[in-house]
Amino acid sequence: MEIGIIGAGSVGLLFASYLNNSFPIRIYTRTFEQAEEINKKGILLQKELKEKRVNVTAFPISKWTGKEDLTIIAVKQYQLPSILDLLHKFDSFPQNLLFLQNGMGHLKYLESIPVPNIFVGSVEHGASKINSYTVRHNGEGSINVALFKGDSFRLKEFSEAGASVNFQINMQEDYYEMLINKLIANAVINPLTAILQVENGELISNPHYFAAVKKLFLEISYVLNLQNPIRKFRDMIRICKKTAANRSSMLKDIEAGSKTEIDAILGFLLDEAAIQKKNASNIKTYYLLIKGKEHRRRVN
Amino acid sequence: MEIGIIGAGSVGLLFASYLNNSFPIRIYTRTFEQAEEINKKGILLQKELKEKRVNVTAFPISKWTGKEDLTIIAVKQYQLPSILDLLHKFDSFPQNLLFLQNGMGHLKYLESIPVPNIFVGSVEHGASKINSYTVRHNGEGSINVALFKGDSFRLKEFSEAGASVNFQINMQEDYYEMLINKLIANAVINPLTAILQVENGELISNPHYFAAVKKLFLEISYVLNLQNPIRKFRDMIRICKKTAANRSSMLKDIEAGSKTEIDAILGFLLDEAAIQKKNASNIKTYYLLIKGKEHRRRVN
Repeated sequence: MEIGIIGAGSVGLLFASYLNNSFPIRIYTRTFEQAEEINKKGILLQKELKEKRVNVTAFPISKWTGKEDLTIIAVKQYQLPSILDLLHKFDSFPQNLLFLQNGMGHLKYLESIPVPNIFVGSVEHGASKINSYTVRHNGEGSINVALFKGDSFRLKEFSEAGASVNFQINMQEDYYEMLINKLIANAVINPLTAILQVENGELISNPHYFAAVKKLFLEISYVLNLQNPIRKFRDMIRICKKTAANRSSMLKDIEAGSKTEIDAILGFLLDEAAIQKKNASNIKTYYLLIKGKEHRRRVN
Repeated sequence: MEIGIIGAGSVGLLFASYLNNSFPIRIYTRTFEQAEEINKKGILLQKELKEKRVNVTAFPISKWTGKEDLTIIAVKQYQLPSILDLLHKFDSFPQNLLFLQNGMGHLKYLESIPVPNIFVGSVEHGASKINSYTVRHNGEGSINVALFKGDSFRLKEFSEAGASVNFQINMQEDYYEMLINKLIANAVINPLTAILQVENGELISNPHYFAAVKKLFLEISYVLNLQNPIRKFRDMIRICKKTAANRSSMLKDIEAGSKTEIDAILGFLLDEAAIQKKNASNIKTYYLLIKGKEHRRRVN
């Protein structure tokens, strides 16, 4: 099974370097220069004090024709529309696509894609892109994947291969349940840590911040109509404790002056609230504060 | 008319140095050391590139007996209970007290004080305490005073003296109206600038932050049952623009690791909301985030 990976950010590079032993991999990059560098230098995978070179074939995204057996879409949610536009230029549509975006904002695009088998996944590994061909694997996490529509044959083949290369990929029954768990953690931890500029653990150790966490969680629970809010709250706290010393991706994005995934996360919840005509006042406030932080990075 | 000033922070020092030409002044300090320094070195008043020495008599607060004709209470709202406790040890009660606290949290104490004439004031001058005997007058503003209860004879005498020393003191008809205007500006500008760590003007120039300003203002307007919210909103924006390059007092307090006046400001609004059984979800969120910032300064 040949695998295509769209996007050579931290997640794309991490997947390419781990799965290269199991499958022929073609990675597609946004710029011509990045593809050239990866072809020349390989991908450098760093973990703890070790560094390993992995030879992967790279192409600029303009060369993507959708012929691989399974294609992993590893771009940010806000880059998705420009990638999906490319599909319409292909002679034939890809057969199997796996989407790894954070949040749930991308689901609205997936129903209308003319691809028979669509999968979604969530990645909990800690990974940082050091430069255009180097990725650092900071923390072991898990990868969860689930069927969104069609047939899961290729997804099973994919997930079974992970175990043999020490890159666990878990098949989940219910894609909605899987994504919602990740969304809740992202929706609480990311905006609060980015606004307060603190590590994840401080949201629990500081009693006032913890009160704000509970307040935001309750509003999210209301918008998502959670069936078992107490369990979901405990799951979220568990993630926050496990990643206590981490700086969240949104905090890092704000510090780096990059665009954040706020639209895919709180933006999705605001859309949900609007559809249900529900009050989501705190979600909206946090959304505005993050948008404001994004804005000032662009104008300064 | 002899004037006592309780508290030798930026406001106490500023009032003492300006009013010293018009009245005999006695300033009361929290520590014995500060009184000693002021007695030895005078108060240094800095403005632009000039510095002026003003000789003022200072005493530690334990020496206060309430004998002055008018006493200005220039401590923070959270220090007020310990000052009011002192009244009960006096042989006779003071006749005239002027309270200069921010917010409206202090009003609840004033009804029950056994003092015949009580005044309240709001100070819009920018002033910074440089050290225990030096105050820097950063920006001209206005001082507004009004009768809270009793007779305003001494307050009139006081406000008339201000003009002759270039220290305008305006008598206002309605103390509630006067304080509410200041409260609204404080309740919006202070928490937002302290959380976002920006100068006042950015709350207007950044369109997302401005949306958050409007959202918080509307909730405050609802809690305070404002009769003319559009005018009050414009007043608040005017203050924000006039002080665009300033860092708010709450931002400075957070940066200095000091206690803020959040309880006198958003705490007062939360109490009002609770009495009226109104939802004040955003006010509560901002309150928690500031309390959390105060907390981490203490534990770190």
